[in-house]
This record gives sequence, C-alpha cells and structure tokens, in this order.
Amino acid sequence: MRVTLRDVAEQAGVSVATVSRALSRPEMVSDEARDRIQEISLQLGYRPSREARGIAPGSAGTLGVIVPDLLNPFYPALLKGAQARAREHGLHLLLADAEEAPDGELPLVQTLAPQVDGILLCSSRMSESDLEAASGLTRLCLVNRRHRDLSTVSFDALSGVRAAVRHLVALGHRRIGYVGGPRASRSESERRTALEQVGAELEVEIVDVGHFPPGIQGGISAAEPLLLRELSAALAYNDVLALGLISGLRALGLSVPEDVSVVGWDDIEYAAVSSPALSTVRVPRHRIGALGIDALVAPAGAVTGQRLETRFVPRDSTARRGGTVPERPQQAPEGQRA
Amino acid sequence: MRVTLRDVAEQAGVSVATVSRALSRPEMVSDEARDRIQEISLQLGYRPSREARGIAPGSAGTLGVIVPDLLNPFYPALLKGAQARAREHGLHLLLADAEEAPDGELPLVQTLAPQVDGILLCSSRMSESDLEAASGLTRLCLVNRRHRDLSTVSFDALSGVRAAVRHLVALGHRRIGYVGGPRASRSESERRTALEQVGAELEVEIVDVGHFPPGIQGGISAAEPLLLRELSAALAYNDVLALGLISGLRALGLSVPEDVSVVGWDDIEYAAVSSPALSTVRVPRHRIGALGIDALVAPAGAVTGQRLETRFVPRDSTARRGGTVPERPQQAPEGQRA
Repeated sequence: MRVTLRDVAEQAGVSVATVSRALSRPEMVSDEARDRIQEISLQLGYRPSREARGIAPGSAGTLGVIVPDLLNPFYPALLKGAQARAREHGLHLLLADAEEAPDGELPLVQTLAPQVDGILLCSSRMSESDLEAASGLTRLCLVNRRHRDLSTVSFDALSGVRAAVRHLVALGHRRIGYVGGPRASRSESERRTALEQVGAELEVEIVDVGHFPPGIQGGISAAEPLLLRELSAALAYNDVLALGLISGLRALGLSVPEDVSVVGWDDIEYAAVSSPALSTVRVPRHRIGALGIDALVAPAGAVTGQRLETRFVPRDSTARRGGTVPERPQQAPEGQRA
Repeated sequence: MRVTLRDVAEQAGVSVATVSRALSRPEMVSDEARDRIQEISLQLGYRPSREARGIAPGSAGTLGVIVPDLLNPFYPALLKGAQARAREHGLHLLLADAEEAPDGELPLVQTLAPQVDGILLCSSRMSESDLEAASGLTRLCLVNRRHRDLSTVSFDALSGVRAAVRHLVALGHRRIGYVGGPRASRSESERRTALEQVGAELEVEIVDVGHFPPGIQGGISAAEPLLLRELSAALAYNDVLALGLISGLRALGLSVPEDVSVVGWDDIEYAAVSSPALSTVRVPRHRIGALGIDALVAPAGAVTGQRLETRFVPRDSTARRGGTVPERPQQAPEGQRA
C-alpha cells in the first residue's frame, strides 16, 4: 500500500499538517522537527504523488471547492470524494456555498483565491465574463460545465436518460413528463435536451411539466401540474424532487408506482431505502469529486476533460402503465404489476 | 427594513465583496470606488450592525465553520442558517469537514485560522488539549459542546427526549430501545443520559441496542439487534439511522409502526415525506447556525452561552403497542391503531 502523509505523521507523532509543512515549507517548522520528519519520510519510503508535485512549493497546501447549494445532496457526496482524494495528496479543502446566485460565485473565488492553490467550481452558474475573471485569479477545474481552456469533469446525461426512457417504454408508457429543475442550471438544460433527443429516437412524447425549485417542496408542488397533464410516468430533475413528487402524489390520493411511475436522478443515499425504493439514474459523485482534485493538482498547464457515464438503476417506483390514472381508469386491471 | 451591504452593492453596481472592502479595507479599492461606495452607504443609511463591529478593521471579512461530517444532513441546514446570517453581516463563510476524526480538527483550525476572523466548531470531537491549542489561534464558538471560556450554542436534549418517551408511553410501550450513534460524539452520550433520566422518571425500561455508524447502512444493521431484544419501540440517534432502521425492519418482514414504533432525531427534510412519515425530535438547526455566527461577530471578549429547546414532532412512524411483535402476538388486536 502507498505510504501517505498520514502514515508519516503517525510515525512522527505529529499532525498531518506539520508533516505537510515540514516537507513543503520547511522554513515554517523547527529544524529539529524538519529533520526528524524528513528522516521518517525516507524510512517509510514516502514520496509525494506524481500529481501532487503540480502544487507549487511554498503553497498553502489547500484547495477550494465552490458548490451552488449544500442542501442539494448531490454535493456532499461529491465533496466527500474530493476530500478523500485531497487527503491522499496531503491537502486540505475549503468549501463555500454560492447559494444558487450566479453573481455570488465570483466574490467567493476572490475570497478563496489568495488562500488556495486551485478551486473546483461545481455546476457553476457564472456568466462567461465572470468565469474569465475567475480563471485569472487561480487555477480552476469545472464540474458539470465545459470550457475549452479549463479542466473539466462532467457526466454524460444521455446514457442514463436513454436507459430510463427505454425502461418506461418497455413498461407501456408512451407519454413521459419531465419535472424540471432551476432554469439557470446547465445540467437541467442538458438533461432536458437529452430527454427530447431520446423521445424523438424512441417515438415517445416528452411533456414539459415545468421548472421547480430542486427541493422536497418543489417536488410536492409538481404533483398537481403532473396530474393535470394526465401522465402515467415522469422523470424528475433530481432525486429530491422525485421524493417530493411521490409525497405530493400520495397527498392527492395517488400511489407510486401503481398510478404514476417516477424516475429520479443522482441516486442519493435515500433513494434505495425510500418507500417505494426510487428508480433513478446513478451519477458517480464520489468519482467526480476525486477526478476534479486530480485535475487541480496535475502539473501546471495540463488541461483535462473527463466525461463519466451515468447508469439507470431500476427499483420499485416504476411499474407497468395502468392503475387508476385519471384518463384511462378502464384500462387498469391488465397491467397492475410490473 | 435594515439596510444591508447587499443594498449598497446593488445601488453602486458592484459586488458585496467590493462594498465590504471599500468600507473595511479602503486601501484595497480605488479612491474613486471608495468615495462612491461611502457616499451611497451614507445616502442609504447603511451602518455595519452593532455585532459586526466586533470584526477587527483590516480583517478578511471571512468566518470559518468546521463540521464533523457533511454527509450528515444535520450540518447542511446548520450551515445554511450560518451562511444567511453571515451574509447579513457582509461576511463570507469557508467550510471544512473534519471527517469524524478527533485529531483531524486541529490541523483544519490551523489551516483556517490565518484566513478567518473566527471559527464555528460544530460537534467538536477534539480533545481538551487540542481545543485549548485551537482557541489560541483564532476566536472560536462551539456548537453542541460546552466550555466555560468559549461562546457556545447548544440544544437541550432532555426536553425533546422527555416528550418523545411520554408519547411512546401513552401508546402503551413500556420498554424502549435506544439505537445509538458514534461513541465519540458528545451529543450521543448526552442523548443517552437524557433517555436514562427520563426512563427513570417515567418508570420505563430503556434498552441499549448498541452504537451504530450514523448513516442509512448503520440503521439497517440495527434492525436485527433491535428485534433480538423483543422491542416494540425505539428511539434512534438521528433521523438517518431511523430511516435505515425502518428499511432494515421492512427487509426482515416487519412493518413500522404496526410492529415497531420508531422515533428519529433532528427533523431533517426527508423526515416529513418518508413513508411512513417519521416521528422525530426537531432541533432548530438554522437558528443554531445563525446564533453561532452572531457569537463570532459579537464585540471582542463577549462570551455567550445559548441553549435552545428541542421539540417532539409526532408523525406516522409511532403507533399503539400491539401487532405482530414477536414476544406478544396474542395481545395484538385491541390496540392496533394509535
């Protein structure tokens, strides 16, 4: 197993931060500590990872991450992946929440930039000109947004959307609602475009149910618009919206999946244990975070573009069309069970 | 309504950060910008809040928050409360996740301290000596841990525990399991103590089901130990454990609340929309975050100790004792409904 900064720290009986300083900014620790830590590093065979050498000597040993909303459970898992990878490099992470405000991101970059070696900018809503300004302040890696001059980690919505729609079509659904998220989100428009493309491929009608705030309450408020459109199946912008939607449908006297099939997006921790367990599209969030950190510690000048697959995970919130959907109660019995 | 930094920024057509700098570190902005922003501040009647004056002139205008685990949904809501209050003071927040490692916190304080005016340390697992060291590096406020020399914001477990146990006793439960969280957590031991005190008061047997990792999987793994103890009701360390427990019981063929009543803790967003909706104890997380920020921007030297009430929220995961609990199937019928 690879020797890490933590191993050196434990052996030396000091903190990881002290080891990090002793090796990268030896002027900050006592000569005695520096000598002892360098000796232990040699004994244990510790070498900074290849990528970590991209971090300039004299740096703070800290990276920044900016997310649009920490309450969206997509981000904590991404942050965990980023954090684990940062730890392997002996680096700390500082996080900031931009509160979904497109003009709130640049001030955060300005605050973080002097204190970090690079920033992972997740699902940025920044304007192109703000992004330009930000990229002049520190090294950036974008998650969920592409840019020709910056390293990016994104995921391929199309693969997951296609598998989800195929699954619904196989269950007899011919009109599929899209319960959308915030207008300003690029992943929202990407998902919407993917859905329309797949709808055309498979000759399925995609029905726009509207844009909703991506939280439980947003999902609850989508139940009535969905019902008015007489839909037997819907894909939601994310799992939280989907869970809210299921709760909202229940409050209106409808059952999922008997009356309406619901598919989420992300595969958050709760998806598998909710009742019914949520069919959803899994996005490799830990891995996205880890690859983002790798891009920030890569040798200076390296610009990488990673694109990860998404995968449909069928569970219990989708079933054969039928049941008591308003427009076709008479067709119910034949297809009650999936 | 109070004039905020944001109002000044909007009027001046600049960012909040620029206004903040112009007013607190005028040497960092152009003379022209400084004059214009100062003029607009006067016109609008902006005054920095009384508390904000506790922040030293020349400071970075940034506070830090350290949490033990961002995946625990207790913290994002607390961070949102802290962030909203920080914004009112024209301050940024930087966050760090200590990954439940008691010896991981001091290095984070060391990293953050030179960059911030103070740190909100949430549910700290630090040793007393580390805490001593940390308090020498920057201003601290503790959430969920008390200390005579530091400002603290905590909540009163006893009020919520007492109401939850009374509710279960009224439903006929006489033995109540405690599905515990991590051993190192102070709120865990506080909750356990409160439960034992209330058990003695109300003459109810409190049965220790064990310590579990505070996530969905931890809850699932608690289902069997709970069952072996032939319990008809349990209180879990937090909502996530409770949701996992319900899922684990379901996998063993038992229903909540018909066979076992389950009470969570925190009232996370999902609690109200899970199926069954989770009876739980509400902890005012937004308010805790906001009060923590207030303590950090209070005039230097002010040490405050705030203690907030917790409140039991009955929902659908608790019901009258009866049903198919193994030890007393013959007693079932009379009390099936709560």
